[in-house]
Amino acid sequence: MSVKAAPRAKQIYFFDEGQTSKDILGGKGAGLSVMTSAGLPVPPGFTIVTKASLAYYDDGKTISAALREELDAALEELERRTGKRFGDVRDPLLVSVRSGAKFSMPGMMDTILNVGLNDETVEGLAKQTNNERFAWDAYRRLVAMYSTTVFGLEKELFDDVLERVKKERNVKTDPEIDAATWKRVVAEFKTIAAEHTKSGFPQDIRTQIVGAVEAVFNSWYSKRATDYRRYNHIPDDLGTAVNIVQMVFGNMGDDSGTGVAFTRDPNTGEKELFGEYLRNAQGEDVVAGIRTPERILDLERSQPEIFKQFVEIAQRLERHYREVQDIEFTVERGKLYLLQTRSAKRSAEAAVRIALDLVDEGLIDRKTAVSRVDAGSLDQLFHARIDPNEHFEVACKGLNASPGAATGQAVFSADDAVAWKERGEHVVLVRVETTPDDVHGMIAAEGVLTAKGGATSHAAVVARGMGKPCVAGCEALHIDRRNKRATIDGASFGEGDWITIDGTTGNVALRKLNLIPPPSKLPERLATLLSWADAERRLEVWANADTPEDARKARELGAQGIGLCRTEHMFMQQDRLPVVQEMILANTPEARASALARLLPFQREDFVGILEAMAGLPVTIRLLDPPLHEFLPSLERLLVETTELRLTKGAESQEYKSRDAVLKRVQQMHEQNPMLGLRVCRLGILYPEIYATQVRAIFEAACDLAQRGVDVRPEVMIPGVGSVREMRITAENARSVADSVIEERGCTVHYHVGTMVELPRACVVADELAGDAEFFSFGTNDLTQTTYGFSRDDAENSFIPRYLEQRILTDDPFQVLDRKGVGGLMREAVQRGRGVREKMKIGICGEHGGEPSSIAFCETLGLNYVSCSPYRVPIARLAAAQAALGTLE
Amino acid sequence: MSVKAAPRAKQIYFFDEGQTSKDILGGKGAGLSVMTSAGLPVPPGFTIVTKASLAYYDDGKTISAALREELDAALEELERRTGKRFGDVRDPLLVSVRSGAKFSMPGMMDTILNVGLNDETVEGLAKQTNNERFAWDAYRRLVAMYSTTVFGLEKELFDDVLERVKKERNVKTDPEIDAATWKRVVAEFKTIAAEHTKSGFPQDIRTQIVGAVEAVFNSWYSKRATDYRRYNHIPDDLGTAVNIVQMVFGNMGDDSGTGVAFTRDPNTGEKELFGEYLRNAQGEDVVAGIRTPERILDLERSQPEIFKQFVEIAQRLERHYREVQDIEFTVERGKLYLLQTRSAKRSAEAAVRIALDLVDEGLIDRKTAVSRVDAGSLDQLFHARIDPNEHFEVACKGLNASPGAATGQAVFSADDAVAWKERGEHVVLVRVETTPDDVHGMIAAEGVLTAKGGATSHAAVVARGMGKPCVAGCEALHIDRRNKRATIDGASFGEGDWITIDGTTGNVALRKLNLIPPPSKLPERLATLLSWADAERRLEVWANADTPEDARKARELGAQGIGLCRTEHMFMQQDRLPVVQEMILANTPEARASALARLLPFQREDFVGILEAMAGLPVTIRLLDPPLHEFLPSLERLLVETTELRLTKGAESQEYKSRDAVLKRVQQMHEQNPMLGLRVCRLGILYPEIYATQVRAIFEAACDLAQRGVDVRPEVMIPGVGSVREMRITAENARSVADSVIEERGCTVHYHVGTMVELPRACVVADELAGDAEFFSFGTNDLTQTTYGFSRDDAENSFIPRYLEQRILTDDPFQVLDRKGVGGLMREAVQRGRGVREKMKIGICGEHGGEPSSIAFCETLGLNYVSCSPYRVPIARLAAAQAALGTLE
Repeated sequence: MSVKAAPRAKQIYFFDEGQTSKDILGGKGAGLSVMTSAGLPVPPGFTIVTKASLAYYDDGKTISAALREELDAALEELERRTGKRFGDVRDPLLVSVRSGAKFSMPGMMDTILNVGLNDETVEGLAKQTNNERFAWDAYRRLVAMYSTTVFGLEKELFDDVLERVKKERNVKTDPEIDAATWKRVVAEFKTIAAEHTKSGFPQDIRTQIVGAVEAVFNSWYSKRATDYRRYNHIPDDLGTAVNIVQMVFGNMGDDSGTGVAFTRDPNTGEKELFGEYLRNAQGEDVVAGIRTPERILDLERSQPEIFKQFVEIAQRLERHYREVQDIEFTVERGKLYLLQTRSAKRSAEAAVRIALDLVDEGLIDRKTAVSRVDAGSLDQLFHARIDPNEHFEVACKGLNASPGAATGQAVFSADDAVAWKERGEHVVLVRVETTPDDVHGMIAAEGVLTAKGGATSHAAVVARGMGKPCVAGCEALHIDRRNKRATIDGASFGEGDWITIDGTTGNVALRKLNLIPPPSKLPERLATLLSWADAERRLEVWANADTPEDARKARELGAQGIGLCRTEHMFMQQDRLPVVQEMILANTPEARASALARLLPFQREDFVGILEAMAGLPVTIRLLDPPLHEFLPSLERLLVETTELRLTKGAESQEYKSRDAVLKRVQQMHEQNPMLGLRVCRLGILYPEIYATQVRAIFEAACDLAQRGVDVRPEVMIPGVGSVREMRITAENARSVADSVIEERGCTVHYHVGTMVELPRACVVADELAGDAEFFSFGTNDLTQTTYGFSRDDAENSFIPRYLEQRILTDDPFQVLDRKGVGGLMREAVQRGRGVREKMKIGICGEHGGEPSSIAFCETLGLNYVSCSPYRVPIARLAAAQAALGTLE
Repeated sequence: MSVKAAPRAKQIYFFDEGQTSKDILGGKGAGLSVMTSAGLPVPPGFTIVTKASLAYYDDGKTISAALREELDAALEELERRTGKRFGDVRDPLLVSVRSGAKFSMPGMMDTILNVGLNDETVEGLAKQTNNERFAWDAYRRLVAMYSTTVFGLEKELFDDVLERVKKERNVKTDPEIDAATWKRVVAEFKTIAAEHTKSGFPQDIRTQIVGAVEAVFNSWYSKRATDYRRYNHIPDDLGTAVNIVQMVFGNMGDDSGTGVAFTRDPNTGEKELFGEYLRNAQGEDVVAGIRTPERILDLERSQPEIFKQFVEIAQRLERHYREVQDIEFTVERGKLYLLQTRSAKRSAEAAVRIALDLVDEGLIDRKTAVSRVDAGSLDQLFHARIDPNEHFEVACKGLNASPGAATGQAVFSADDAVAWKERGEHVVLVRVETTPDDVHGMIAAEGVLTAKGGATSHAAVVARGMGKPCVAGCEALHIDRRNKRATIDGASFGEGDWITIDGTTGNVALRKLNLIPPPSKLPERLATLLSWADAERRLEVWANADTPEDARKARELGAQGIGLCRTEHMFMQQDRLPVVQEMILANTPEARASALARLLPFQREDFVGILEAMAGLPVTIRLLDPPLHEFLPSLERLLVETTELRLTKGAESQEYKSRDAVLKRVQQMHEQNPMLGLRVCRLGILYPEIYATQVRAIFEAACDLAQRGVDVRPEVMIPGVGSVREMRITAENARSVADSVIEERGCTVHYHVGTMVELPRACVVADELAGDAEFFSFGTNDLTQTTYGFSRDDAENSFIPRYLEQRILTDDPFQVLDRKGVGGLMREAVQRGRGVREKMKIGICGEHGGEPSSIAFCETLGLNYVSCSPYRVPIARLAAAQAALGTLE
């Protein structure tokens, strides 16, 4: 006999052995052990540890001799404890064989019930329960379940038989089928199993059990389970436990039943039992939904004894776990059995309320409460969302480019959007993609839907800036602009037709849907929880805001500063864009200066608004960042227009000539890779007058306010610095303008000049930059683009989805910070920067600043603050606290 | 009296004090000291050390009290040594005050001669020399020189006077002017100085001397000197010395004269004195070129004594320095004086010959010879160049995109290029920019000139690949394609007009110029020198080659392997492009497979050629790298074409529809930033069949050859890997195809699979990649793009030139490797890679692999090889040796 290199450690624990580790037993096994230890009524049984499934897989899907031995001994022990025997023809022992991983993976893995039945024991069960119908029903369930899970046969094979039998018997539901018919069904099921497999359905009980255990092990590696783990970031190397438990039956008459209950309402958090109970049924019948279950609370009247016992147990479990429980139970002939307990999944609203209530009840302290709420889930609370009661067909799915839902009548041009809006209509702007010429239409619309473009496309960036919902890059959408119609697969819609977009999910529906608006202020309970979070966190939370409204909103939600105020959106507003274009198209420095001079008052006014809204707090203003051609009409459109004009009006026409002149300039400014072109501080170095104008506007605004007694704290941020001389020149220029304005005005304004670290080279030479930069702010969007060599615009509609599918990437690095690559460069920048400027203030203002796991990483880096969009401030406050507490990784 | 914090170290050295350090005395002072110590005839004098100029500048342009004291003492000592006195009205001491930096900066800094003359001493000089005309001529030179250098007056002020006087006297040259007139001129010059300055020309000799010293100090910081240093990579903090030397006069009659001589011919290297001598003249007269000097060799007949003495001195100096010298001398009344000696600048050809000869003569050893030749200069030898005797007007300057010169008749389309070529004409293809559709025209042309595009534009990359000259991005060029004409500023040319382009310099001339062809093989002397270099170097030198011809050429020039064989150029050839386009436009995997199947034989044939040419040596083949839309017609052109077709033929025409279908596909594939888009290994992951076909072609070729007994060593290189899963998947796929081909064929082929490290993330996770990659090759072109966030295409025509001008960058990082940023990431990659795979082979195949200072950096990184274009292999062999010897930094 060959000796397998099997683990010698104990691989099986009975529920009463005191082992309660989820790592070892999985969630279900641990719960059953805890309940058993607490003296609660749990059917006897044991758990095969999670590691056994990994060893099984590593050994080429073989159960080791050691495990086999231990399993045999455990089965004997179970017989001893229950006083029943496997295969006993008079009173057979039946068990369920169920999976149970450390983290709940509902429905992803296999379960086999009624193991222990065969042609002989079924008769014993019938006699023993005095219910032949029940016994044969249980047997047919086993044969079907075993064949599909262990042999992998198609479920349809068995469903077809059932359908046919019901038709023959002219009945609708299973309970109407009698014992004789179930006998015939079992025979047919066994024939199917025999035809499709070598061995057929095993009559030997030990063979049944081992097959079922293997099936559970294998289900850990099934595609759906693997996909689920990927999606939920559950490691593959945890493995699943197997729980073997004596069967109890809820379908043994009206004094039996089965139920699922939450100890509190998982939607609202209200302290009240919540759940369902189905009389004379097994668990799978509840799922099948053929009969309507009763509310768990109604048990108080219908089965007061059971209800009383259950309520007491539920309370005990909640107190034991100090957490809301989701409990499965069965009543067999009036006796209550607990089959599972676990922490209950809940809505964000419920999570907050429950956390607060548990503190009130003295079950947990505030730190624990802070750790109990999934920070990311708070996002649900701050956007309009589609009413969950709406059931609708998803016409297509695009990129969830800017969160929230919008419903409105479709329009196909920016001008139409404005016209409809002026008539008092609500519209959704539908475009192939948007350009600066569309911004007035975006302002008028409730939301934006585009066929092309990724998360950094014009539409996405501008919509996020405006806080408007946007679904971008919806590739199935085809737009016929001339005829103001669009099609999605078969369906089509035209101007004025209602559509709904959900920028949180990317879903698009071709009708009007009811929306639930976001709360107008921080809900009271959340405010309390966040105040507890604030007491725990080390990281400050700042916000990215480009307008006074956004700044006020951010402050209201708890922002401690503005980490990123983008000035380009100020340039894109309708009344300014023509001046900006004039500035860009200027042929002489004088013409450029004249246009800039006209922009200055606009910018000053913008800055007055933001600085005033954030009085007493720092406001980090980034100087102009995007390539200038972003403010001009698109090259593609101009090419078509000039060609049309040339052929219709002639090359000598004034119309053609003037449009062609614009084309020439746009062609001249055209770049192969604008992301890597003439932008960021390069603009400020080649056109110093642009940055000088912006800095003047900032400090004129600051001085105006300072003289009115407002405490202003402007921070000037230079974008895209990659070398020490870029930093020095732009910082010196900025300081020189700032100081001269301050001197002119004769007031006192304290400010800093720093840089946005968003290029790999900036990280590698951060020590040099720190000589001139007073602060760093990581621009992780661009840093991710250059570190990976991914253009977000191109990648998120193209290879990133495929990379996620193929698990080349575990996360989209634009959503979850890449710790090893991008994070490695950030760590280097922090070390080098603080090596030169010891107390240097360092933050993050990329979109990762509002994503919980990225915030946890920022905590480990020792950053001073994270900055995120206003509505993510609550998320960041909570996540920062969890990171400080070490409960968020 | 205030005590300045002046350096207390000795700041002045007389030439006979034994100090000969160039760092301390500058080149000129050190040379004069060496010659003085050797007993050669040098006029007495001393040197103010280089550091003094820096202290002067740091002290706000003030000469310290300490230096002033030391200078006074030195001037007294000079009086003692010469037996003359400053300001002596009978026999005044006159001196020259000249700059002298460590590295020669010819003509960049100031010199003042005849210092010591004033209204009184001029009379003394006249009497003493018995030559009134000479004395007043010397005095007017001093007044003018002093006024322009010390006071900064315009030279024209003085030239105008001279012009007028000559007109009045009706003479053409200075020597025709008599003493009286010079007196008048001096008076006028002094008036000018007095009118334009507070103090006027100083009569006090000490004031003259201090003013002259300050002028020399200041000239170190002049714009032209600063620009020169930047261009030649000379640090700013070296400073300049000042040499104060007793004047000797070559213009004191026919027994006087002045000359410049090289100890060997600086153009050919021949061992023969080379230079010029002008009788009765001062140095500046030689430069003025009014009289024709005689050849130095002719002195043997005309002044045999002087010649004999000079030859002996020249030989002594050459032996002393063990290096060719460039010597300035003056003969004053039959007596020879040496005024300067320095290493002679020379052509590449001369440098090689001289290095070899010096070894033959026993003056230097082979290692020294290897260090003596500027590796970069060898580039001159391997391209056609414009005959140096051609004098021509540069019509415009573009980017030197692919080296070498070409002359031919202009054509404006690829088809015309082919038609003219078929008629036996030589043509230069002139395009706004090129696309894959132009490649047949580029093949037919001698060279390519484009108005748009940078060093990685299609034209540049393809021309370099073909080894054809290319001047790209010539912005002054405007092309009227319809009329087959072009204009550059005022000038215009049409089809058939001769033009010449110089891809080495970027120059364009609008006529036919005589070209000197490159040598057909490695010149014999260079081959010898390189064999010595090979004995010293540690780095291997490989070549980048895409064709068998290039591979053979590279091997002939000494390449030890192919470091980069780009497969995309194989796809762009005229007979393959339609199949490639079919593959890309394929709507089904079957259609794609069918096109790929037709490409396979082409690729196999290509690989057979290259592998055979490199038998016994490794050939690194990079799988497909560029975005697929590079193989399709340009979006801009399609937009114009479809608009034209729609308006002329109608939207229902077949022509419009078929073109519009191509447009749709191109639009679909269009990317915002193709550099960061669907390319490199991302292609191989999304379209695995493309890489599989390429790998199959490689190994079918390898097996064919192996079975014919050829020693093949293919290395498969995956481009653009950024994460471990990309590496693993592509490497596993490649190995699986390779192994199955090898097995099918039943032969033995050893190969490796590695990756091109060209993304910052690849450097940061290099330890992970090294698990699957057997070798790394740094693709520093792309790595520089992503590290800096610079698109080379956009940056090199846009902000990089401005950055160089403003000294934000000291070098174009695409030409000289950025050691701190890109180099820092490379160092990390080497450490991480070798940490996992100890003996990992690591090379570089970016363009930096052929640039000497970048090669020196690769030596310090411990790379195994550098790979460069075939004609740069000799440069790299030499530079690698110099790097190993530590003489190249």
